[in-house]
Amino acid sequence: MLNKITVAVDAMGGDNAPGEIVKGAVDAVSRSSEIKVVLVGLESAIKDELSKYKYNPEQIEIIHATEIIHTGEHPAQTIRSKKDSSIVVGMKLVKNKQADALVSAGNSGALLVGGQIIVGRIKGIDRAPLAPLVPTSKGVSLLIDCGANVDARPAHLLQFAKMGSIYMENVIGIENPRVAIVNIGVEEEKGNALVRETYPLLKEMKDINFIGSIEARDIPTGYADVIVCEAFVGNVILKLYEGMGTLFMGTLKNVLKSSLKSKLGAMLIMKPLKNSFKKFSSEEHGGAPLLGLNGLVVKTHGSSKAKEVSNSILQCVTFCEQRISDKIKESLFENEV
Amino acid sequence: MLNKITVAVDAMGGDNAPGEIVKGAVDAVSRSSEIKVVLVGLESAIKDELSKYKYNPEQIEIIHATEIIHTGEHPAQTIRSKKDSSIVVGMKLVKNKQADALVSAGNSGALLVGGQIIVGRIKGIDRAPLAPLVPTSKGVSLLIDCGANVDARPAHLLQFAKMGSIYMENVIGIENPRVAIVNIGVEEEKGNALVRETYPLLKEMKDINFIGSIEARDIPTGYADVIVCEAFVGNVILKLYEGMGTLFMGTLKNVLKSSLKSKLGAMLIMKPLKNSFKKFSSEEHGGAPLLGLNGLVVKTHGSSKAKEVSNSILQCVTFCEQRISDKIKESLFENEV
Repeated sequence: MLNKITVAVDAMGGDNAPGEIVKGAVDAVSRSSEIKVVLVGLESAIKDELSKYKYNPEQIEIIHATEIIHTGEHPAQTIRSKKDSSIVVGMKLVKNKQADALVSAGNSGALLVGGQIIVGRIKGIDRAPLAPLVPTSKGVSLLIDCGANVDARPAHLLQFAKMGSIYMENVIGIENPRVAIVNIGVEEEKGNALVRETYPLLKEMKDINFIGSIEARDIPTGYADVIVCEAFVGNVILKLYEGMGTLFMGTLKNVLKSSLKSKLGAMLIMKPLKNSFKKFSSEEHGGAPLLGLNGLVVKTHGSSKAKEVSNSILQCVTFCEQRISDKIKESLFENEV
Repeated sequence: MLNKITVAVDAMGGDNAPGEIVKGAVDAVSRSSEIKVVLVGLESAIKDELSKYKYNPEQIEIIHATEIIHTGEHPAQTIRSKKDSSIVVGMKLVKNKQADALVSAGNSGALLVGGQIIVGRIKGIDRAPLAPLVPTSKGVSLLIDCGANVDARPAHLLQFAKMGSIYMENVIGIENPRVAIVNIGVEEEKGNALVRETYPLLKEMKDINFIGSIEARDIPTGYADVIVCEAFVGNVILKLYEGMGTLFMGTLKNVLKSSLKSKLGAMLIMKPLKNSFKKFSSEEHGGAPLLGLNGLVVKTHGSSKAKEVSNSILQCVTFCEQRISDKIKESLFENEV
């Protein structure tokens, strides 16, 4: 078991738990022998699901947790009161170095709060941003921060820029990632107070490739690899991405079944259509890491199915192999931010 | 000429001026006899364009203006220095009640600044928001504010909510429009400082139909008719709408021409496809009004063609006939905001 990356997985979190979560875990261990998954949650329920599959038993372990944090429960309160919940137990595994990472499709707020108070931030990091990948016409960009830490200060955004650069370079493999700050125009004097104050500081940072402002219309074009913003704006961008995708796909589906002629046309284009639009699916990109913690927490969509869970687990392997947390720590000495 | 609504049109603004602008003006007067258009700009250029069409000469007038404010020029400086520009001359017509409205596809910043300092705000209105309509699966919603007045205060957002309601009810014809504030969750305690402070005040307002928070993913579903936010967030939403539309349509176009089979499929679905996606086109909805001024200023896209110009001119007629500015003034007495 030595040298394996250990990923705790919240078996009870999300709309499709535990079925799809366990399926994703089995899939992940079948794809990589470098990994060990610890499924955290109700043992009997997890065993029932596991009994459906064949897998290397040395790669999957169960840790029993009796409670579940549901969607809608108050994050801070529930993290404190449900000490035997799958999220809290999973986070403690990370905190105590019994696991390298936790993957969960559960209550977002609880993950954000728990990440900060149970796993804890790297010393010197002021805020742990949630940094999902968003699809673009060129590939993916990292949107940092989309968490719950609203009303950020310039120093936070500088740390986001640096952490985002480290992630994109080492996990996604983009050399010298282009960093931009979300703004309402490209000129340096544009923006709200936060952006106007942060912009010159980003420009001065020697160890990131800062390319200036990015207007929201250029996010889908892949104009930047790391898109820095405070969490309120990031959350709006992320959710509008989802909402617009749903609106367009819904409209398109209605067109394709609107008449016999359309249905015939749909048959002819369905295969390339699915291939091209696959990149917009959240399943393809795994979950969103919470960066800057003493260990890795990855949040997947509440609606995650096995594929997203599996991809998220494998993403943790790259994260750990590339020693991202160490690199973030080292960067704190380089930058006095 | 009595009782006609007079709309000044900046003949020199936008990528397609003066050709498409003049064409749009001619189209508008052909569609409504209730309207008079004053084309503002270089007389010779306007005359050249007008000579291509037949129209009722009583409905179109030219006012010569020798200067043009170009894209990229500094808004505040150029408004002050180019006193004989089509934008400044057009705005003075509105200020002096020689025109009821100005439509322009020109420099956005100059329109926002000029609106405030030349046309002037209604007494009691603290900020004049730019309020475009965005397409949704149900129709359109008003996104208020998308202008340049970032870092708004709660009192500003309350005025936006009220002005937006008046606009949607009277210009678009939606009874008791649903007003929501952009937030990162639906619970009242969610949000940044501005939203948390504004939410209870909106809830107390008796003469709007406040339905609470709206997450960005629900904007495209048409969950609310009036979407209140400060300008930085509004700008991000508006531009991401455009960017996502372009990404999606680009991907779809590539699919439809990817093979002979796809091209055949494309032929079968092209007609319903165009019909369904027409609603996402900015041309259909006319321009974005700058609300709360002593007269109407409507900003159309820089890339406006005749159809958008024509729709924007007709939109001004409804705005003026419905006495929107008066209704906004009256609302200031009802609400002590």
